[in-house]
Amino acid sequence: MNIAIKLMYSGTKYSGWQIQNNVPTIQGEIQKAIKTVFCKEFSVLGCSRTDAGVHALEYVCMIKDAPCFDVKKLPLALNTYLDENISVIDAVEVPDTFHPRISAIKKEYVYKIYNSKIRNPFLNNRAYMYKRPLDDIKCNELAKEFVGKHDFASFMASGSTITDTVRTIFYFDVRREGENVIFRVCGDGFLYNMVRIMVGTVIGASEGKIKLPISEIIELKNRQYAGQTMAADGLYLNKVFYEKDIFSNE
Amino acid sequence: MNIAIKLMYSGTKYSGWQIQNNVPTIQGEIQKAIKTVFCKEFSVLGCSRTDAGVHALEYVCMIKDAPCFDVKKLPLALNTYLDENISVIDAVEVPDTFHPRISAIKKEYVYKIYNSKIRNPFLNNRAYMYKRPLDDIKCNELAKEFVGKHDFASFMASGSTITDTVRTIFYFDVRREGENVIFRVCGDGFLYNMVRIMVGTVIGASEGKIKLPISEIIELKNRQYAGQTMAADGLYLNKVFYEKDIFSNE
Repeated sequence: MNIAIKLMYSGTKYSGWQIQNNVPTIQGEIQKAIKTVFCKEFSVLGCSRTDAGVHALEYVCMIKDAPCFDVKKLPLALNTYLDENISVIDAVEVPDTFHPRISAIKKEYVYKIYNSKIRNPFLNNRAYMYKRPLDDIKCNELAKEFVGKHDFASFMASGSTITDTVRTIFYFDVRREGENVIFRVCGDGFLYNMVRIMVGTVIGASEGKIKLPISEIIELKNRQYAGQTMAADGLYLNKVFYEKDIFSNE
Repeated sequence: MNIAIKLMYSGTKYSGWQIQNNVPTIQGEIQKAIKTVFCKEFSVLGCSRTDAGVHALEYVCMIKDAPCFDVKKLPLALNTYLDENISVIDAVEVPDTFHPRISAIKKEYVYKIYNSKIRNPFLNNRAYMYKRPLDDIKCNELAKEFVGKHDFASFMASGSTITDTVRTIFYFDVRREGENVIFRVCGDGFLYNMVRIMVGTVIGASEGKIKLPISEIIELKNRQYAGQTMAADGLYLNKVFYEKDIFSNE
């Protein structure tokens, strides 16, 4: 059977999703736990390569050709062998046609900023602390310029080998909740570091440091015109959407 | 001059407020930072002895006879020398008559429960994970039995040497927010472990494990009739109230 697994994790201690030698990764930890539960090694397919330090509220991954298992019991079984920074929150059987990355139709990311001069011990590594006052209304207006189908080459970390840089952004909203400023963006896919560069560009433009209109930066297809890449601490993969909600109980 | 300081801290790494040899404490860390800023040792007076692992959103302490200093600059100056788990969030000059503990007229504590079978990596040490379903409506009704002026001897950790065990509880509310159940209690003072024992008693009574009515447990003035002492992780000193809000800008 194929089993899709929903994970929540705090990425601070990990070098991202993808397994690597000699560093702790989410994929590495999950595969270790799965090996302990099933007494056999499995390569786990992920929905996205989250970077070092990036968090996830609902990350979806999959074990292919797993032995028969009561999937309802899998979260607690796996959590026994995972450390407190990773939690398996759901597991369901999925058809052969399902792939956590390829079947995804959209993904929602959140970037959290703690907008204060004084640090908050409860937000260490959970939000990016930004000391200058942020104009959330202006940020929200600027974010709208990303919405639609565009070539986002300007918003991809240099060095990426991806050639098809066209993506669709469905919404990009910025909202203040007290001292927190929440950037929420949903698209059919994201290039390497794209969310973090888009947030950096919105902030730079809101402060007048980036003079070019965002539409023009998109047109230029050149990383150097966009804003800075924001730190990983504030980034959360919030939700991955599929044609059918595979985790619903129906 | 006397300077009152407002602190926010995550207590997980510390052996409580009070300075002790060979273990990290909040008071110890603050006194070290103050010594670095003022080049002189000060004994800092606290508003309460929070226990190991207990958090604070607004803890108030005081430096007596500090050298003249621009208090507005003190938070950032001290935070430079404090680790990320402690933050000085405000500082004001206070009159000689002010004492952070003695002048306090009430204190509000919050006890946070994460009511779920599946752990949440973002609430490690930030809330107490309680797996059985909690009846928050019933808990809220039961909590009301504590309100008023009572002898709370039944709700004090055994071994405490305090003899005046009469305290007034102004309110005690329980509210569910999704999977979180928030206990909020305000009183003119609290005995050792009192909030944690009251929460344990409310939960025990809500599940029918404690059969005696809470009013009767109060009457009995005997620790053995009350519920368990809840873990420190979920407890927050939320706010300390004084006759006049010393931190207001007026």
